[in-house]
Amino acid sequence: MKAEILAVGTELLMGQIANTNAQYISSRLPEIGIGVYYHGVVGDNPERLKQSLRLAMSRADIIILTGGLGPTQDDITKETVAAVLERKLVLDRTSLEQMEKFFRNRNREMTKNNLKQAWFPEGCTIIRNSTGTAPGCIIEDKGKTIVLLPGPPSEMKPMFEETVMPYFASKSEYRLESMYLRVFGIGESSVEDAIMDLIDGQTNPTIASYARDGEVTIRVTAKYPKNGDGMDLIRPVEDEIRRRLGDAVFSNDNSSLVKVAAKLLFEKKKTISVAESCTGGLLAAKLTDVPGISEVFDRAVVTYSNRSKMEQLGVRQETLERYGAVSEETAVEMAVGIRNVSGTDIGISVTGIAGPGGATDEKPIGLVYTALAHRDGVTAKKLHLWGNRAKIRNMACLHVFDMIRRYLTRPEDFN
Amino acid sequence: MKAEILAVGTELLMGQIANTNAQYISSRLPEIGIGVYYHGVVGDNPERLKQSLRLAMSRADIIILTGGLGPTQDDITKETVAAVLERKLVLDRTSLEQMEKFFRNRNREMTKNNLKQAWFPEGCTIIRNSTGTAPGCIIEDKGKTIVLLPGPPSEMKPMFEETVMPYFASKSEYRLESMYLRVFGIGESSVEDAIMDLIDGQTNPTIASYARDGEVTIRVTAKYPKNGDGMDLIRPVEDEIRRRLGDAVFSNDNSSLVKVAAKLLFEKKKTISVAESCTGGLLAAKLTDVPGISEVFDRAVVTYSNRSKMEQLGVRQETLERYGAVSEETAVEMAVGIRNVSGTDIGISVTGIAGPGGATDEKPIGLVYTALAHRDGVTAKKLHLWGNRAKIRNMACLHVFDMIRRYLTRPEDFN
Repeated sequence: MKAEILAVGTELLMGQIANTNAQYISSRLPEIGIGVYYHGVVGDNPERLKQSLRLAMSRADIIILTGGLGPTQDDITKETVAAVLERKLVLDRTSLEQMEKFFRNRNREMTKNNLKQAWFPEGCTIIRNSTGTAPGCIIEDKGKTIVLLPGPPSEMKPMFEETVMPYFASKSEYRLESMYLRVFGIGESSVEDAIMDLIDGQTNPTIASYARDGEVTIRVTAKYPKNGDGMDLIRPVEDEIRRRLGDAVFSNDNSSLVKVAAKLLFEKKKTISVAESCTGGLLAAKLTDVPGISEVFDRAVVTYSNRSKMEQLGVRQETLERYGAVSEETAVEMAVGIRNVSGTDIGISVTGIAGPGGATDEKPIGLVYTALAHRDGVTAKKLHLWGNRAKIRNMACLHVFDMIRRYLTRPEDFN
Repeated sequence: MKAEILAVGTELLMGQIANTNAQYISSRLPEIGIGVYYHGVVGDNPERLKQSLRLAMSRADIIILTGGLGPTQDDITKETVAAVLERKLVLDRTSLEQMEKFFRNRNREMTKNNLKQAWFPEGCTIIRNSTGTAPGCIIEDKGKTIVLLPGPPSEMKPMFEETVMPYFASKSEYRLESMYLRVFGIGESSVEDAIMDLIDGQTNPTIASYARDGEVTIRVTAKYPKNGDGMDLIRPVEDEIRRRLGDAVFSNDNSSLVKVAAKLLFEKKKTISVAESCTGGLLAAKLTDVPGISEVFDRAVVTYSNRSKMEQLGVRQETLERYGAVSEETAVEMAVGIRNVSGTDIGISVTGIAGPGGATDEKPIGLVYTALAHRDGVTAKKLHLWGNRAKIRNMACLHVFDMIRRYLTRPEDFN
């Protein structure tokens, strides 16, 4: 079964919002064996919508339209779909009553243009909207299925989950299951080099890799019968990929590196504190983005000035003068310092040059030192990162999370 | 001039990422008089890409393709575009040299598959990529312009801004100029209420408002001849909006609230330090995201535990026991404490309940206290925020930046 997702709305073509509806629907349909082959976006224009819909019907079995179901004159999806399918619009009394109730419950007057939302192409199945006023619908037409959903994601998602997914799941013969293997510390081209023969040789499961924000994700997707288990096909491929990439693979359930590091901190009951310079609080912010982190996270200090490094962390003036704030020696003293001050199991530090200013010939933009202090010692790492300020700061954080992960997985490597 | 944006990449059709590139490009092109009429997304499949490109060329003057320029076998955009345009691919020696240099500078070996990125459709203009390895290109073909850009937004955006926008701007007869008035502290419906007659009454400039991440942006867009000045049309509208919304308008050049606050710190030469609890480093991270901030930003401490609040900031045990960590009293002692410890002009604090855990009947999720300590005293503010953890943390930061802005603009209000 091939699907196409067609979003209707000039606000998308003006760049006011991203088409997150297409992303959401696309991430869900493969699970019930439906492949998404195209996304399209078209404005609130009947002629162009007609052409796009006709094209979609010529190449897909399922066409899901989002947007254009509201009360205003710009909302043209139902009218246009009805015209293409040569069906008339008929009033649905239940929709009308629910809409009246919606407004009554909120003590708001229902303006006349809302009535439009109770008219539907003849012969469709109506999808109730529990969080807004515009219902959607499913239309079966000459072997094609056309689904109309409202544009606001907060309305679209529950309608999609409660009605559309079950509707298609009951019709599908097979399922797709995907595993996402996430990799840090190896570039995309090297990852591909290492698993090229697997990518080339497989048809089920299929394997694809892509790079994003400093890491690589390998997707392994299996197609299997409705009552089977996709993991039977996926596991052997996972094993082979892990054999080749080793512990660069940090998760197989799409968990981010910070989540993996946090989970290990929870599991091993290790407390942590952070001393940051160039990342400026980002490291702490990412760690504390994980709910429940207060169990293991004690404190962070962001020491931009040399004085604050000395006062807050006990970095020695001599060290700063001799080696500079961006040096392995300073990173080590920061990590040891924050661990001592806070009394946590682990102390982490980052110091570096994120740019655009602050670089010298010996210390270029992207030079970053990180250190991890623990009961038995301290380990430092020198990094050469590249990109703009935001990218360097983000990459530095990923390297720290990876360091935490590696320390908690194999502490013996840190002695 | 009509444009169509065609994104290439199975990861988009699998819902792994949203098509933010289309949004970005769509938000920029209208400013130089180019309307975007369609977005399309197609997978890494030569046949379907060919068909989509042919369709785009039949209905648009400008086709911008994003993605599929990388080193892997999945990357098929250049090859497919060349096939549709019946051009051969030729090696660009400059691209090859730059790529070799890129790898050499990073001490990484260039794998063979990278070579692919130095081949281009014959007769094109190459767009250099300063943040990655895959260059893009512009092809003029039978009155149509086809632009190829890489998929990662961090590479696509600078290439689009530095090369593609100037390229099209030089060809266009008229210009659109937009001013973005950003507003904090008034809800979207109240903003719209206040300026509804302006929105309804105008055709040039046009006025539109939209809410995002806790603030409201009002866009004022003027269309004017190439050699004119759009600001002549925009300024009177700006003045009227400011008259109605007062100092809730914090910028007219699309500067974010943190940038406005940082600029005032630079201008007034005031140093700042930060004490955070629920925002967990996010406040410091956002401040230090501003290049050059080290001039005024001294340090931040993220005190999650009560002990760290006492040790790092001198918050009194009695205060924590009597009023709790989330209280006006604690916020005040945190702000005063960080200002004393660091010796800065301003000390800022945030403490609150970001959820999902930690709430009580008296202290619900979203209860946040902020305080600003200065030479002559300290001012605290109680906030009732709503949304999930990320939203509450983000809103708390915005309120702090607004507090800094207001203090530096009218310090007399803080006495």
